[in-house]
This record gives sequence, C-alpha cells and structure tokens, in this order.
Amino acid sequence: MKASVLFSGGKDSSLSALLLEPFFEIELVTCNFGLLPTGEVAAKTARELHFSHRVLSLERNILEKAYQMIVSDGFPKNAINYIHEKAVETLASDPKVKFVADGTRRDDRVPVLSTAQVRSIEDRFGTQYICPLKGYSRKAVNILVERYLVIEEGPSESTQKADYETELRELIRQKQGEEKIRELFPEHIQSHALARKERLLK
Amino acid sequence: MKASVLFSGGKDSSLSALLLEPFFEIELVTCNFGLLPTGEVAAKTARELHFSHRVLSLERNILEKAYQMIVSDGFPKNAINYIHEKAVETLASDPKVKFVADGTRRDDRVPVLSTAQVRSIEDRFGTQYICPLKGYSRKAVNILVERYLVIEEGPSESTQKADYETELRELIRQKQGEEKIRELFPEHIQSHALARKERLLK
Repeated sequence: MKASVLFSGGKDSSLSALLLEPFFEIELVTCNFGLLPTGEVAAKTARELHFSHRVLSLERNILEKAYQMIVSDGFPKNAINYIHEKAVETLASDPKVKFVADGTRRDDRVPVLSTAQVRSIEDRFGTQYICPLKGYSRKAVNILVERYLVIEEGPSESTQKADYETELRELIRQKQGEEKIRELFPEHIQSHALARKERLLK
Repeated sequence: MKASVLFSGGKDSSLSALLLEPFFEIELVTCNFGLLPTGEVAAKTARELHFSHRVLSLERNILEKAYQMIVSDGFPKNAINYIHEKAVETLASDPKVKFVADGTRRDDRVPVLSTAQVRSIEDRFGTQYICPLKGYSRKAVNILVERYLVIEEGPSESTQKADYETELRELIRQKQGEEKIRELFPEHIQSHALARKERLLK
C-alpha cells in the first residue's frame, strides 16, 4: 500500500512521512515548475532521510496564475493555497496513486484545503487524501521533530527549501525584482530536514 | 514518551493506538462511571490487542449532567460531547500524562472538541491533545482497519462496547426504561475490535 507524500524538505512534510512509514510504502513527491532546481534540493534531502523520491512537474500556468493572485491580493495566502490544491489534484489524478498525504498541521492556515476541495478531489479520482499531522498541535509536532529529525531553521530568504513559495518568489523576482518579494512575503522562519535521528523508536 | 489513548474498544480508538505505537509508549484508558463494567470489557479487548490498559473513574455527576442534557435536547450530541470534554480534561489533568489521544476522525461530529476547548485544556495542564485519525477520512480509516484489525460490527444495542454511550444508555434505562433509549438514540452500527491481524506492516 503506497502513500505519496508531498515533500518540501521541511520538518512538517518530513515528519508526516515518518508517521506514515510503518503503515505505508512511502514515496516523497516534490512539485516543480521548472524555474529553480527545487526537485534536486528535495531529492538530496529525501536521500538523507532514506525515502524514495520523485519530482512532479506542474504546468507553468499554475505558477503564473498564483503570481497574478499574490500581486493582486498583496499577500501570499490564496496563491499558495491555489498551488497546493493543484498539486494535490495533479498527484491524486495519477491512476497509480491511491493515497496522497501532506504535512498540514492542526493550526495551519496556509496551505490548507477546504472540506469541499478535499471531497471533490477524493470523489473525482478515488484517491484518499491524508494529513497525518492534522490532529497535532505545533508543539506536539516540534516534540516529535526534536525526537526523530535533525533540522536546520532560518529565515525564509536563506533556507534551502523546495516548497511552493521558493519558485513563486523566483517568478516575482524575475518579473518585479527583489524588493517586491519583501513586500509580498512576511519574513518567517523555515525549516529544512537534514537527517533522521537514528534512535530507537519511542 | 507515553501517550494515553482514550479507548472504547471500537475500531477508531484501536486504530488510533496502532498509529501512535511506533512513536509512543501506549497506555489505553477507558472511562467508567461505575454503572456498568465497561472497564472490564475494554481491558479484555486491550489484552487481545497487546496494549497496556487502565480504567479512569469519572465522577458520577458528569453522567448525571449528560443525562439531563440528552433528555432536554432530545438527541445525544451535546451530552456525548460534554462527557468527552470531561474525559479528556480529567485525563489531561493527571501530572504524569503528557499526551492524550483519541480516535476522532476527519468527518466525526460526535464526540469532537472545539478548538477553544482543546486550547483551554492544553494551556491549563501543559498536556498535548492528539487526534491521530483527524487527517483521515472514514474510507481511509476503514482501509487501515481492514488491514490491521479483526473487528465485529453490529447495531449499537447489541455490540459490546465501552464508550460513553454505553453507560449513558444504562442511566436512561434505569430512570426511564428501554423505550426512552430508543427515542433518544438513533440506531447506528458500532464496531468492536477483536484482535490484530499479525501481518507484516505495509
């Protein structure tokens, strides 16, 4: 029974894969629009976590539409949610994929799918969408991460990551320059998984 | 790292414990008001699943208040939610308990705690509340149950269980007779875990 886990290289998607691992055969999947080699960054992280990994190419017009959304809104929430919806949808539409998972936590607001979006995807494709961390607070996630993963954390500008934001920032940089990125994205701390702590479980 | 999993003997709380087992030391906890030996029913199920188990006695006035709620409302939702809140709160208030978990699924409406109730419990007691199935649909839960557990299912009247409903029904029977139970509880299918399927994981 295989689960395809959307993977940014951050602590949440990494922990999500760890929690599923005893029950599913895990493949990590990183979405890429062809603007930056985020797939390679994520593939290296996946190797260090001993998970199999592949890159899912998403259509460039998804990123273009997200760009229009963020510029029009002035903040990233709707644009990131839009990309996430398309990522889950694209992965779920693969007939070989039966379970799509991601790293959404209980308190997450972005990216998060609505109940209607989830039901629509599950009904159309017969694929189940699982959020292993949905019943965990940020604090509970941090306790498990501390126990099972080695991570580095830093400001979103400088931390190597392979999330949707990375290429969306790049598109904004190409079209409007660095300054516009700082205007649209609040500075926040991001995490990057480096390795498993090979401790005994529990 | 110990997790205390509220346990009714049904498939959801059983699966919840299985999902946490690789990462936590599990103790199953069954709440009892002293009206029926639900703790013994649950203890037997726990033994068959190879989990440690204990009974948590809840104050009888919680059940009395729930009885007043269901009689006044004419339906069980608020009464069951009230008992559940008190159960989570009582367990979380034990200084030795750091993680309280239950079997709440994504689509569950009863019992379910509100965001405010969860935050209040976590803040007051420093205990984390985890719902391992919160990111799983009913269908995904059923697929995992089929894979890892032997269960029996039947109408709520005849299935041996140790959930809050069992003793609430008994209190209604004692005070107002069988007919009143049928008036207040819609008939529904309940499950009871019998054993693990000792298959290789995945």
